[in-house]
Amino acid sequence: LRRIKASGLKLQLCTNETQATRENFVRKLRAMGFDISVAEVTAPAPAACHLLRERGLRPHLLVHDGLIPEFAEIDKTNPNCVVLGDAAENFTYANLNEAFRLLIGMEKPVLISLGKGRYYKETDGLKLDVGAYMKALEYACDIQAEVVGKPAKRFFESALAELGVPPEQAIMIGDDIVSDVGGAQQCGMRALQVRTGKYRPSDENHPEVKPDAYVNNLAEAVDIILQQL
Amino acid sequence: LRRIKASGLKLQLCTNETQATRENFVRKLRAMGFDISVAEVTAPAPAACHLLRERGLRPHLLVHDGLIPEFAEIDKTNPNCVVLGDAAENFTYANLNEAFRLLIGMEKPVLISLGKGRYYKETDGLKLDVGAYMKALEYACDIQAEVVGKPAKRFFESALAELGVPPEQAIMIGDDIVSDVGGAQQCGMRALQVRTGKYRPSDENHPEVKPDAYVNNLAEAVDIILQQL
Repeated sequence: LRRIKASGLKLQLCTNETQATRENFVRKLRAMGFDISVAEVTAPAPAACHLLRERGLRPHLLVHDGLIPEFAEIDKTNPNCVVLGDAAENFTYANLNEAFRLLIGMEKPVLISLGKGRYYKETDGLKLDVGAYMKALEYACDIQAEVVGKPAKRFFESALAELGVPPEQAIMIGDDIVSDVGGAQQCGMRALQVRTGKYRPSDENHPEVKPDAYVNNLAEAVDIILQQL
Repeated sequence: LRRIKASGLKLQLCTNETQATRENFVRKLRAMGFDISVAEVTAPAPAACHLLRERGLRPHLLVHDGLIPEFAEIDKTNPNCVVLGDAAENFTYANLNEAFRLLIGMEKPVLISLGKGRYYKETDGLKLDVGAYMKALEYACDIQAEVVGKPAKRFFESALAELGVPPEQAIMIGDDIVSDVGGAQQCGMRALQVRTGKYRPSDENHPEVKPDAYVNNLAEAVDIILQQL
């Protein structure tokens, strides 16, 4: 991060984090020593708020308690859509039925999902991610959710808008072959896959997505980018 | 029921009930005045037990408490598959994560679903049915569940086996265009749709399933069947 910023390049962090507000997310990163500000973070919840305002939608929220402040300014009375995030402990039978009933009662049900991850790992084991619950509601209502967050094209476009940079002048660095690399490339950006984190050797034979290059870690990605300036 | 039995015809009740054992299901029907015995009921849980035994599978159960006695005779130690029913209040975040972890930890995950209904109505409102949770686990594990229960062909075949009757000598009567009518026809049976219960006028334009005839109610179905003897 420090080397990128020192070189004069602009930086935007694209995360699918939906358990905390950007403020709390940035606080955590700063505590770990990363020099990052809220304005440098693109996250699904603010992207969803943008979309809700644009279309006059009033959401019923099925999200993590930690995310609720992101929707503070949004009118939530008499909901005409459901916003689904990684609600974790809030994914109760009662809450899922409530979200379902609201959707099935709408003339044209609108389900906005803050990502479509299948699962993730926490210290106490693997957990079902928002994508699994999205599929449950999609099937029950016979609808397609609108996904905000990586790999949605709109999401990368809003990150580029924040940077004020056209896609051909931007490079995505990520560990997820589909969400990070595939999503950015669909948007006209180049993309590097780091061989850390979610990376699996089988990614290198992915049937649909091929990164512009592989790097062994973030430092190597920065080396390559700075060499080409 | 009385008229069918008096005529000498055999009868088998095919239900997707997975919240109670057949014993309790029959008790409820008898209390309502229906002359029916446990042997006359084909239900998903016993069909699943048959399949588990056949393939040497030891299930982890995510089902309704009321259904657990149906699996009393089945070895459930060191599970190598997951059996999913309409678990209702047992569809907790913790239980879903547990079922998911077992599946994703298997070399070849086996998910057996006791039906694939989208939702159903109870006195306090609509509820997500087993199919929605099946889709969540399918997506998270990137697998296809094996569905036991209507409209699975195997399910109708086992009902016919109970009756000792070939499909061309059997008639299905049901209110669900896909689960009842479509499932039975795929098995070589004829099928009547009753215009009660789940029936919707739009069923008559169903793109894939066309009943052999419509009847306004069960009594009319019996009239037609008895006339043709």
